[in-house]
Amino acid sequence: MSLKEKLFSKLESKEQHMIETRRHLHANPELSFKEENTAKFIEDFYKDKDVKVTANVGNGYGIIVEISGQSPGKTIGLRADFDALPIQEEADVPFKSKNDGVMHACGHDVHTAYLLHLGEALIELKDEWNGTIKLIHQHAEEVPPGGAKSIVESGILDDLDEVYGIHIFPMLDVGEVGLISSNSMAGRSNFDLTIQGSGGHGAMPHTTHDALVAGAYFVAEAQTIVSRRMDPMDSVVVSVTAFDAPGGYNVIQDKVTLRGTVRYLNEENKVPAYEAMKKIAAGIESSFDVECDLDYVYDYPVTYNHPEETQYVEDILSESVGSYITEIKHPKPSSGSEDFAYYTQKIPGTFIHVGSKPDGVENPYPNHHPKFEVHEDSLLISAKTLGDVVLGRLES
Amino acid sequence: MSLKEKLFSKLESKEQHMIETRRHLHANPELSFKEENTAKFIEDFYKDKDVKVTANVGNGYGIIVEISGQSPGKTIGLRADFDALPIQEEADVPFKSKNDGVMHACGHDVHTAYLLHLGEALIELKDEWNGTIKLIHQHAEEVPPGGAKSIVESGILDDLDEVYGIHIFPMLDVGEVGLISSNSMAGRSNFDLTIQGSGGHGAMPHTTHDALVAGAYFVAEAQTIVSRRMDPMDSVVVSVTAFDAPGGYNVIQDKVTLRGTVRYLNEENKVPAYEAMKKIAAGIESSFDVECDLDYVYDYPVTYNHPEETQYVEDILSESVGSYITEIKHPKPSSGSEDFAYYTQKIPGTFIHVGSKPDGVENPYPNHHPKFEVHEDSLLISAKTLGDVVLGRLES
Amino acid sequence: MSLKEKLFSKLESKEQHMIETRRHLHANPELSFKEENTAKFIEDFYKDKDVKVTANVGNGYGIIVEISGQSPGKTIGLRADFDALPIQEEADVPFKSKNDGVMHACGHDVHTAYLLHLGEALIELKDEWNGTIKLIHQHAEEVPPGGAKSIVESGILDDLDEVYGIHIFPMLDVGEVGLISSNSMAGRSNFDLTIQGSGGHGAMPHTTHDALVAGAYFVAEAQTIVSRRMDPMDSVVVSVTAFDAPGGYNVIQDKVTLRGTVRYLNEENKVPAYEAMKKIAAGIESSFDVECDLDYVYDYPVTYNHPEETQYVEDILSESVGSYITEIKHPKPSSGSEDFAYYTQKIPGTFIHVGSKPDGVENPYPNHHPKFEVHEDSLLISAKTLGDVVLGRLES
Amino acid sequence: MSLKEKLFSKLESKEQHMIETRRHLHANPELSFKEENTAKFIEDFYKDKDVKVTANVGNGYGIIVEISGQSPGKTIGLRADFDALPIQEEADVPFKSKNDGVMHACGHDVHTAYLLHLGEALIELKDEWNGTIKLIHQHAEEVPPGGAKSIVESGILDDLDEVYGIHIFPMLDVGEVGLISSNSMAGRSNFDLTIQGSGGHGAMPHTTHDALVAGAYFVAEAQTIVSRRMDPMDSVVVSVTAFDAPGGYNVIQDKVTLRGTVRYLNEENKVPAYEAMKKIAAGIESSFDVECDLDYVYDYPVTYNHPEETQYVEDILSESVGSYITEIKHPKPSSGSEDFAYYTQKIPGTFIHVGSKPDGVENPYPNHHPKFEVHEDSLLISAKTLGDVVLGRLES
Repeated sequence: MSLKEKLFSKLESKEQHMIETRRHLHANPELSFKEENTAKFIEDFYKDKDVKVTANVGNGYGIIVEISGQSPGKTIGLRADFDALPIQEEADVPFKSKNDGVMHACGHDVHTAYLLHLGEALIELKDEWNGTIKLIHQHAEEVPPGGAKSIVESGILDDLDEVYGIHIFPMLDVGEVGLISSNSMAGRSNFDLTIQGSGGHGAMPHTTHDALVAGAYFVAEAQTIVSRRMDPMDSVVVSVTAFDAPGGYNVIQDKVTLRGTVRYLNEENKVPAYEAMKKIAAGIESSFDVECDLDYVYDYPVTYNHPEETQYVEDILSESVGSYITEIKHPKPSSGSEDFAYYTQKIPGTFIHVGSKPDGVENPYPNHHPKFEVHEDSLLISAKTLGDVVLGRLES
Repeated sequence: MSLKEKLFSKLESKEQHMIETRRHLHANPELSFKEENTAKFIEDFYKDKDVKVTANVGNGYGIIVEISGQSPGKTIGLRADFDALPIQEEADVPFKSKNDGVMHACGHDVHTAYLLHLGEALIELKDEWNGTIKLIHQHAEEVPPGGAKSIVESGILDDLDEVYGIHIFPMLDVGEVGLISSNSMAGRSNFDLTIQGSGGHGAMPHTTHDALVAGAYFVAEAQTIVSRRMDPMDSVVVSVTAFDAPGGYNVIQDKVTLRGTVRYLNEENKVPAYEAMKKIAAGIESSFDVECDLDYVYDYPVTYNHPEETQYVEDILSESVGSYITEIKHPKPSSGSEDFAYYTQKIPGTFIHVGSKPDGVENPYPNHHPKFEVHEDSLLISAKTLGDVVLGRLES
Repeated sequence: MSLKEKLFSKLESKEQHMIETRRHLHANPELSFKEENTAKFIEDFYKDKDVKVTANVGNGYGIIVEISGQSPGKTIGLRADFDALPIQEEADVPFKSKNDGVMHACGHDVHTAYLLHLGEALIELKDEWNGTIKLIHQHAEEVPPGGAKSIVESGILDDLDEVYGIHIFPMLDVGEVGLISSNSMAGRSNFDLTIQGSGGHGAMPHTTHDALVAGAYFVAEAQTIVSRRMDPMDSVVVSVTAFDAPGGYNVIQDKVTLRGTVRYLNEENKVPAYEAMKKIAAGIESSFDVECDLDYVYDYPVTYNHPEETQYVEDILSESVGSYITEIKHPKPSSGSEDFAYYTQKIPGTFIHVGSKPDGVENPYPNHHPKFEVHEDSLLISAKTLGDVVLGRLES
Repeated sequence: MSLKEKLFSKLESKEQHMIETRRHLHANPELSFKEENTAKFIEDFYKDKDVKVTANVGNGYGIIVEISGQSPGKTIGLRADFDALPIQEEADVPFKSKNDGVMHACGHDVHTAYLLHLGEALIELKDEWNGTIKLIHQHAEEVPPGGAKSIVESGILDDLDEVYGIHIFPMLDVGEVGLISSNSMAGRSNFDLTIQGSGGHGAMPHTTHDALVAGAYFVAEAQTIVSRRMDPMDSVVVSVTAFDAPGGYNVIQDKVTLRGTVRYLNEENKVPAYEAMKKIAAGIESSFDVECDLDYVYDYPVTYNHPEETQYVEDILSESVGSYITEIKHPKPSSGSEDFAYYTQKIPGTFIHVGSKPDGVENPYPNHHPKFEVHEDSLLISAKTLGDVVLGRLES
C-alpha cells in the first residue's frame, strides 16, 4: 500500500467527520477580522496533536500549523481561508447559518473543513514523509486588506518552497479540477468618487453646478478606459456600481457619490487604469465646474499561478483522472479577485479550482449568492487533491 | 375722504393685528391637504361677519367667503393660499414653527393674514362699493394636484368676472410690485424613470444588463430635449434631480431609478417635451437592453396673466407709485410653478408679485429655504395693493 | 392730396420699374465684398439727381445717399443691403442668376430695388418735407464682419436721429408687416474646434489618443451649455454643424475638426456661452489626453429694436391697416442674425419685417434656400412701408 | 549531407536571386485583384519546371503549383500572398515602386520571392522527398473578401493534410521567429453607418432632426460594446474610424456617415458584437428620431493556429535555434487580421512570424506605413524556415 493509498484511505474514513465539521462551521459563520470562535475551533482541533500551532498571525486570527515529517526536506504551505460574508442566508439547508446576516456563501467552510482533516491525516502519517508542511488557516479573505498580505509580511512563511490552495466553484462539476497557468484571477482596485457641485432649484439649472449631470457624463466617459485605453489583448474591467443621488423632483443636488471596481489580469494595467480615471475625473471637473474627489485604492493583486508548479500539479493529478478526478479543465482566467495572490507573489505555487456543483442543478447559484450551496462530495475530493499534490511534491 | 382712503386707513389700523395673525399662522403651519386647524382659524375669523362662508370646497379645506356690496355689479375673486411645507425651520424668529418638520417657507402665512384683514376691511365698507367679492382661501398649493383645480371645478367660482392673487417674493424690495403680462410662471411636469436591467458581479459586466450605465446615458441624452428639440425662443427646462442607485463596490445593480422635473413657459411645449423623453427612454431600452418604465405626470399648467387685466392693474397701481409702492417692476417670467394657473385658465385676471426682502440683506434666502424670512411691511402693502385693485375694478 | 398720398401715387407709378430693377439685380448677383457692378449700378441710378452720394464707405462698396429736404429737421437713415450668397440658384424664374454659384437667395435684390425707387420718389418730393434722409446702400451683410459695422465706424451716420430698415420674409403673407420690440434677432458667435490626438491602427486603440471619440463626447457635453448653464428664460442655441473626420475602416485618426454656431437673444449670454465651451474643451483635453484648439469668434451682436421707435412705427403703420397692409404681426424674435444690429447699437430705430410669401404656396422655401422666391408685390409694399415711416417721422 | 543541408545549401546559393526577385516585385506592385503582371511573372518562373501549375484559381489571379515527390505521402500547402497596397511609397530605396500610389508596404513581395526560390529548390530535390507540396501563390489578401476564401472553396486544396505560411514583421528582429498557438490573429468585421436626420438652419435645431448629434451619442454608446457586453477575458475592439460630416457654420446637416472596424480573437464574439451594435443603432434611431442604416460586413475570420501543428513547427525549428534562428518567440496574439484564416479553418496548420526589422532602427515603421522597409536577410531565413518545416513534416 503506497503512502498515497494510505492517505486516501484515512481521508475516506474521515469523510463523515469532515462533513460534520463543515456543517458546524457553516452554521456558525463569522465576518472577516471577527472570526474569534472559528479560530478557537481550529486551534482546539490541533490540541494534543504533535504540531506547532502559531495563532493570531498577521493582522487577525490567522493560524499556522507546522507539521514536521520524518526527515528534513522541502517546506510546503497549504492554505484555506475561514471567514464568512455579510449575507443573509436563503439556502434551505438543515445547518443554516445561526448568525443573522452572516453566511458562508463562498465555501470557506468547505476549505477549512477539508484542510483540518487532511492536516490530521498528514499528521498521522508524518513518519512516512520527509520535509515540512505548513497549514495556513487564513482569516479575512473577503475584506481588503485581507489576511494573506499580513501573514506573508509576518515572515512566518519565509521558509516555504511552494504553496498551494484550493477554491471550490459550483460552475465545475463534482470531480472536475481546474488548473490555470500564469495570471489566473484578476487584480482589483476599488474607487469612490464624490462630485461636489452646487445645488439649487430644479427649474433654475443655470444657478447651479449640476453634480448629477457631471456624474452621468463621468460614467459615459469611464467606458473609454476599457474600450480605448487598455490593450485589447489584456483583460480589464471598469464597473461603476453605485450612483448615490436620491432626491425630490425639484431640487438639483449639491453633490453625488459614485463607487465602483476595476479589475485587471495583468498588473501592468493597474496604474494606467487609475491614471486614466484620474484624467477623466479632472476632465469632468473642468467641463462641469465641479470638484471631483477620487478615492482610489489598489486592492488585491493579480493571482499568478507559477507555470512550473501548475505543470507539476497537472502531472500529479493526471494520474488520478478516472479515479477521484473525472477531468482536469483549463478554465478561462477569472475576473474575480483573491488574496491568495499575495502568497504566490513571494512563493512558487498554484491555486486549484475544485468542482462543487450541487446535484440536479443546471445553473447553480454562484459564490456570494444568498442561495449558494455546495456538493459535499467536494470535501473529500479537495482533501485528496491537495494531499495528492503535497505528497507528490514532498516524496522523492 | 375717498373710499380708497377709507380702506387704506382701516388697513393701517389693522396692521398690528395682521402681523399677529401672520405670526400665529407661522408658528402653527400645516402640510398640504392637512390644514385642519388653519381652516378652522380662518372660518372662526369670519364668524359673526355678514358674509357667506363655504367650507371644504374642492378636494380639501378650501374656503370661499362671499361679500356682497351695496348694489349688484361685477364679481371679483381674491385668492390666498394657506398650506405649509415639509421643511424644518432654521430661521431664527420668535414665532418659529411649533410643528416639527413643517414650515411656512413660502409666505402663505403672509398671504392668508393680509387677505383676512383686507377681507374684514372690505366687509366693514361693503355699503360703499358695488358688486361681489369672493375671498378664496385656498388649501394645498404646494402638493399636486393642488387645491385650485378642484375649487375651479367645483363651480363655486363660475360667476367670477375677474380674479387676482398676490405672491410675496424676497427678491423684490419692500415697496416694489412686479407685474408680468401673458405667460408668467412655468408649467410643470414631473417624472420617475425606473430602468430595469439585470445585475451581477462587478467583474462580469457581460453577464448583466447594466442599468446604471443605461441611466447615465439617459441623463446625457436628456440634455438634448432642451438643447435640440425645443424652440430656443421658448423656455423649457429638463432637470434630472435624482439618480437613486446606492450600492457596494462589486455588484452591478439590477435597476436604478431616476426622477426629475420639466418646466415650460408655453403650454405648447408640454406634450413635445414628454414625447421627446419617451423617445429617449425607448432608445435607451433598445441600446442597453433594459426596460424603462417612465411615469410622467403633467402637473400645474403655465400661469397666464391676461394682458388686459394686467394692464388694468398697472394703471391702477401706477397712481400709488410714490406712496405705498416705490416702483412697479416687470420681472422676467419665472420657471417656478403655481396652481393659481388654474384660475386664469377660466377667469380673466393676473398674479401680482409683492416685494418682501428683509432689511439689511443682500441675497435673501429664497422661497422654500429653511431660513426663509419676510419683511412684515409686506403684509400691509399686500393688503393695500389688492384692496386698491379690487376697488379700482369694482368702482364706477 | 396729402404728402403721403403723393408719395404713394409716385411709388405706384414706379412699381413696374422697381420690379425690373429687382430682376436685373437678381440676374446679376455678386458675393459679399465683391459687389463692384451692383455698386456701380446704384451710383448710376443717382447720377444727375440732386443728392450727395458718397461711395466706398466702410470696408467695401457701401454707398450713402444724402437727400436734403426743404428746411432743416431730423436726420433719418433708411438701410438696404445689396450682396448675394454663394448658392447655386434652383428657382425656376426667367431672371435666374447669370452668375454660377451666386444667388440673391435672401431678398437683398428686393431691398435694394425698393429703396432705390423710394429714394427717387423722396427726391422728387424733397421740397415738401423737412430734415434729411440718408439712404444706406450697404454691402456685405452675409459675411462677417459685414459692412454695417464699418459704415457706422466711418462716422458718416453720426448725425442720424433714427434709423430704419426692412427685411422681407416669405413666412409672412404679402401685406403682413412684422414688428418686434427690444431684442429681435440673435447675436452670433462662430467656432472651429480642432482636436489633436494621435492616430494609429484601428485594432490598437490603446496606442492612440482617439480624437474622434473625444470629439463625440465634446458634442455630447456641449448640449449642456444650453440645457444647464443658460437662464431658461433667455434664448441660446449651440449647434455643432460640422464634424470633419472622413477616413477608412482601419485607421484611428490623428485629429478631427468640428465647427458650429452659437446664438443668443441677449448679449449677456455671449461671454458665458464662450466660457462654458472653453471649459468643456479643457475638460475634453484632460479626459481624453488630446489637445483642443478652440477658435471662437464673436460675430454680429443682438439686433435691438428700440421700443420707442418700434411703437412710433406701429402707430404710423396702424393707420394703413386695411389699405396696403393687411395686418401688423408681432412675431417671436428670430434666432437668425443681422448686421443691422450695429446701427441700432448707436442710433434709435427698428428693423421691420415685410411679408413676401409667394402665391399658392403653403410652406415657402426659406431665405438661403436654392429655391427661394419672393412675391413681387412685396416691393411696392416695402417702399410704401418705409416711405410711410420716414414721412411720419419727419413731418410735423 | 542530409536533405536539409542540401536544401539550405541550395537556398544560400539562390539568395542573391531571391533578393533580385523581391526588388523586381517591389518596384512593380499591383493592387489586389489586379495583379496581372505579377501573376504572369510567377507563372513564367515555373515554365519548363516539372510541376503542375494551375492559374486563375479562385476569384482572381491565384496560382497553385503542385510538386510531386519521389513516392506518395502527405500533401502540404505553403502559402505566400502577392498583392500590394494603395499607398504612395515614401521609403528611400533604389527599387522604389514605379506604380504611383501603389506599394508593397506589407512584405508580400518578400513572401512571394522567398517562396518562388524555395519552390525551385524543392523541385530540384524532389527525388529525395516523399509526398506532395502545393505552393499557394495567393492574390488579393489586402481587400476583402480576399483570395484565400475562394481558393479554398475551389476545392483545389481539398487534399491538403497541412498548410503553413509566413508573414514578416519588422517588430521582430532578424533571426527571430514567432509562434502563437490557437487564436493568433483577430477576426474582423467592418461597418458603415449612415444616420439620416433632417437638416436646417443652425439657429433652429427644433426644426431639424440633428444627425450629427445623434452620431456623437452613437459613438459614446458604442464604447459600451467592449466595456460592458463582451467577456473581459476575450479580446474585442470596436473602433469608429470615420465621422464624415463636413459643413459650414450655419447649417445643421441632413445626414452623417460613420465607419469603423470590429476585431475579436474569438469567433464567438463575432455575432454578439454585431447584435450589440444593431441594438445601439436602433436605440439612436428612437432617441433622436433619425434613421440608421447600418451596413455591417463579417470579414476575415479569426486566424486559428492548430496547437498540434504549431507544436510540430516549434519542435522542428527548435533544432535550428543558434544557427539561422536566434530565438523562438511567443508573441501576444495580434488584433490585425489575415485571410490565411480561411486555410486553417479547413486544414491543420499554423502561420509563422519571421522577423524583418531593418538594421539600426529602434522603432521600425510598421506594416502598411509609407516608409515600411524590410531587412532582406529575412528572405533567406523565411525560405529556410518553411523549407525546414516542410521537410520535417514530409520526411519519415
